[in-house]
Amino acid sequence: MVGEENVLVDAAARLARATGLSYLDLLRRRAASADFPVPDAVVLPADPDEVQAVLDVCVRHDVGVVPFGGGTSVVGGVAALRGEKASVIALDLVRLDALVSVDAESRIAVLQAGVRGPAAERLLGEHGLTLGHVPQSFERATIGGFAATRSAGQASSGYGRFEDMVTGVRLATPRGPWKLGVAPASAAGPDLRQLAVGSEGTLGVITEVALRVRPAPQVRRYEGYALPGWTAGAEAVRDLAQHHALADVTRLSDVDETEVSLALNAGLKTAALRRYLAARGVRRPCFLIVGWEGTAHDVALRRRETTRRLKAAGAVRVGKALGESWRHGRFAGPRQRDVLLDMGVCVETLETAAYWSNVDELRDDVRAALTAALGRAIVMCHISHAYETGASLYFTVLTARDEADPVGQWQRAKAAASEAIAGLGTISHHHAVGVDHAPYLGAEIGSLGVEVLRAAKSAVDPTGILNPGKLV
Amino acid sequence: MVGEENVLVDAAARLARATGLSYLDLLRRRAASADFPVPDAVVLPADPDEVQAVLDVCVRHDVGVVPFGGGTSVVGGVAALRGEKASVIALDLVRLDALVSVDAESRIAVLQAGVRGPAAERLLGEHGLTLGHVPQSFERATIGGFAATRSAGQASSGYGRFEDMVTGVRLATPRGPWKLGVAPASAAGPDLRQLAVGSEGTLGVITEVALRVRPAPQVRRYEGYALPGWTAGAEAVRDLAQHHALADVTRLSDVDETEVSLALNAGLKTAALRRYLAARGVRRPCFLIVGWEGTAHDVALRRRETTRRLKAAGAVRVGKALGESWRHGRFAGPRQRDVLLDMGVCVETLETAAYWSNVDELRDDVRAALTAALGRAIVMCHISHAYETGASLYFTVLTARDEADPVGQWQRAKAAASEAIAGLGTISHHHAVGVDHAPYLGAEIGSLGVEVLRAAKSAVDPTGILNPGKLV
Repeated sequence: MVGEENVLVDAAARLARATGLSYLDLLRRRAASADFPVPDAVVLPADPDEVQAVLDVCVRHDVGVVPFGGGTSVVGGVAALRGEKASVIALDLVRLDALVSVDAESRIAVLQAGVRGPAAERLLGEHGLTLGHVPQSFERATIGGFAATRSAGQASSGYGRFEDMVTGVRLATPRGPWKLGVAPASAAGPDLRQLAVGSEGTLGVITEVALRVRPAPQVRRYEGYALPGWTAGAEAVRDLAQHHALADVTRLSDVDETEVSLALNAGLKTAALRRYLAARGVRRPCFLIVGWEGTAHDVALRRRETTRRLKAAGAVRVGKALGESWRHGRFAGPRQRDVLLDMGVCVETLETAAYWSNVDELRDDVRAALTAALGRAIVMCHISHAYETGASLYFTVLTARDEADPVGQWQRAKAAASEAIAGLGTISHHHAVGVDHAPYLGAEIGSLGVEVLRAAKSAVDPTGILNPGKLV
Repeated sequence: MVGEENVLVDAAARLARATGLSYLDLLRRRAASADFPVPDAVVLPADPDEVQAVLDVCVRHDVGVVPFGGGTSVVGGVAALRGEKASVIALDLVRLDALVSVDAESRIAVLQAGVRGPAAERLLGEHGLTLGHVPQSFERATIGGFAATRSAGQASSGYGRFEDMVTGVRLATPRGPWKLGVAPASAAGPDLRQLAVGSEGTLGVITEVALRVRPAPQVRRYEGYALPGWTAGAEAVRDLAQHHALADVTRLSDVDETEVSLALNAGLKTAALRRYLAARGVRRPCFLIVGWEGTAHDVALRRRETTRRLKAAGAVRVGKALGESWRHGRFAGPRQRDVLLDMGVCVETLETAAYWSNVDELRDDVRAALTAALGRAIVMCHISHAYETGASLYFTVLTARDEADPVGQWQRAKAAASEAIAGLGTISHHHAVGVDHAPYLGAEIGSLGVEVLRAAKSAVDPTGILNPGKLV
């Protein structure tokens, strides 16, 4: 029904849809004998109706279905697990690549699930619009994946998290099509859009998403500040968040991450910058990237308010170069990992979020857990998303790889960090649950929460073909 | 277990918890023979543990439980339906009246479910904080009720809808306690807080809610504008919403509602005002109330931006008197209905929300449906809540009561309006589902959506004791 050329059974095609991009995925792919599960076939439907038709066949033949978008999951979200099914397919949604409709008056665009970040911006750009969703996975990840995982972009302070942009969602399920979202807000029972968003392919295959869009910005202004230490930096970001003065991008590095930036960033005259900051009382700087996007009028107005508060908080302006160099390298992180892996480095990231009163303790505890598990390690941290009530914490870890047991080395560190997170924050702010975080979900949403998700899944997927072994 | 004095079985206590405040409820209460269901007992637990203990007993004895807060439902949400249960109690949460904790750094306060609007503001005011949630039911309704029904306050443009304020929720369920919310945002699966919020007592009894709070405002500034007609008015509100320039309160009346304001508002010098507006080209005015709250600095800054855009949209300033008179009468609407009922008037409200491109058609269709059903009637409409992608529409209907069949008269009008809404907007923007909107829920969230809600309910309430006959 999708055409023979859209059912791939060759090894290369199947291997390409077998893993995501976590450090463990990269290790597995480099191993001489790849010992990870691989889908039995890759199926590429053309549109939502074909997705539904494929699901119907999979129900009849009891075949597991792993929805596949950009393949950028770092939590095992696209692992080709088959659960109790004899066979499993990767349902690659890349052919669902259309901008379905634009309602300029309501500022809503409907995009198909397989549209990648750059294509979404190009399609919307033709209408003078932008989505403004720029996570680090932007270049490869898809609209359906953003929705399925509750993604958050680097400009989430301005454009919102992905779930804030979702006004409607269309799914194919084993029980038939399901469409949600008729108004910007509703009191017609629980918001089931927020059940579909984050369901990670377990409650249906997201085929289309209706999204709040905005006019493409006329002006983009990015710049850097330095704060005197982590506590002062976090306080400054909290002040901005609680006074509705956040820039669209607001990203605070801790001292360790700032030192790495200073060491690696060729665009900065490091020695002169250190002297300049020290003369202004900033001896252990924490870099803060702030970026505004919009009309010239709005950017000027909002920038004035943000910088007024930043200066009152003791921030010293570093200038445009720092902001622009961050902006141009913003998607490069994942690509650099392969180089580091070649050099024998264990490199991975993990993230969480907490209420403000827990942020410092959470950062200390996760750092301590990682250092205790790994021994000598560089642990960097930044706040990438700030809210009135709290913030996210994003950790980057580098250490010498234990060549005897590289997988076990990271699994132990990750488990230690996850244990430190439980009780103080969420197991994931924007990476989702997948396989890796599933053991910690019950502690966060309660065993009743897990049972509610399972019950919801049973209602739409009674035979359990959808993404076996993920989320719950 | 709650003490004998907290189990009421007298007729007055049971009658007082038998209905909400819809027009049909008022009619039923005035009828000589009250033919509506009444709970068998009223139970008043003191705290979340007692709520859980009462539920456990009700599970053992298969007793239906209707959670009761302020009793202000206008959709039958507190009707003492027993479904298949032999007996049903009203679980009155009014004794859960404590401010449990304040986290000033994170701007989060935990309030018990029975705290009413004014008490919440008084308790938070002692800490220099405000919730800012002021629906028309403010004076009687409770924190638990706001959460259970996805309430939206009159200042929702500034403070957000109630679900935007909820950072955590604690429920008692037939399967035991359930607690949700560990971070401001999360990608740990679907947001189950958004399943609990709006669950209308069917997924558990909300006993505590953690809420984002803000500093009590130093300044409140309310004023009125006149727009030249509905289309110009709606365009102006859309412009504000899409440029993040909404005042905290933004409320646009249509021409009919404005005419009633002009006729009834003693504070306005009507003839002079009409001449003043006509001289500025506004012959059929639509009043717009705008109100800002916050620090003097923020109010000045934001007011400048709102008024700049309003003037560019052709708005003529009417002044402070209009804004202040609205503010002082903002909770009076429900009380005036009894006077009108005495005069033989049929008076009721209904509300919806839609994306901007549907707003005009939706308003026209609902007005036409109501007029066709009722014959001669005054139908007024206002936008009370505006979003980037759409707005709410709130209708007030007055007509001569059909004394032969007053209930049928309104039921037919309501059904006609609800049919007009289906497909263009949501069956409720902030009144919830209850009994009255349940027949229309399937059209909005799909039969799969209804099944998902039923499955979630079965997981936490396998014997179906919670609020029988409501929502689904």
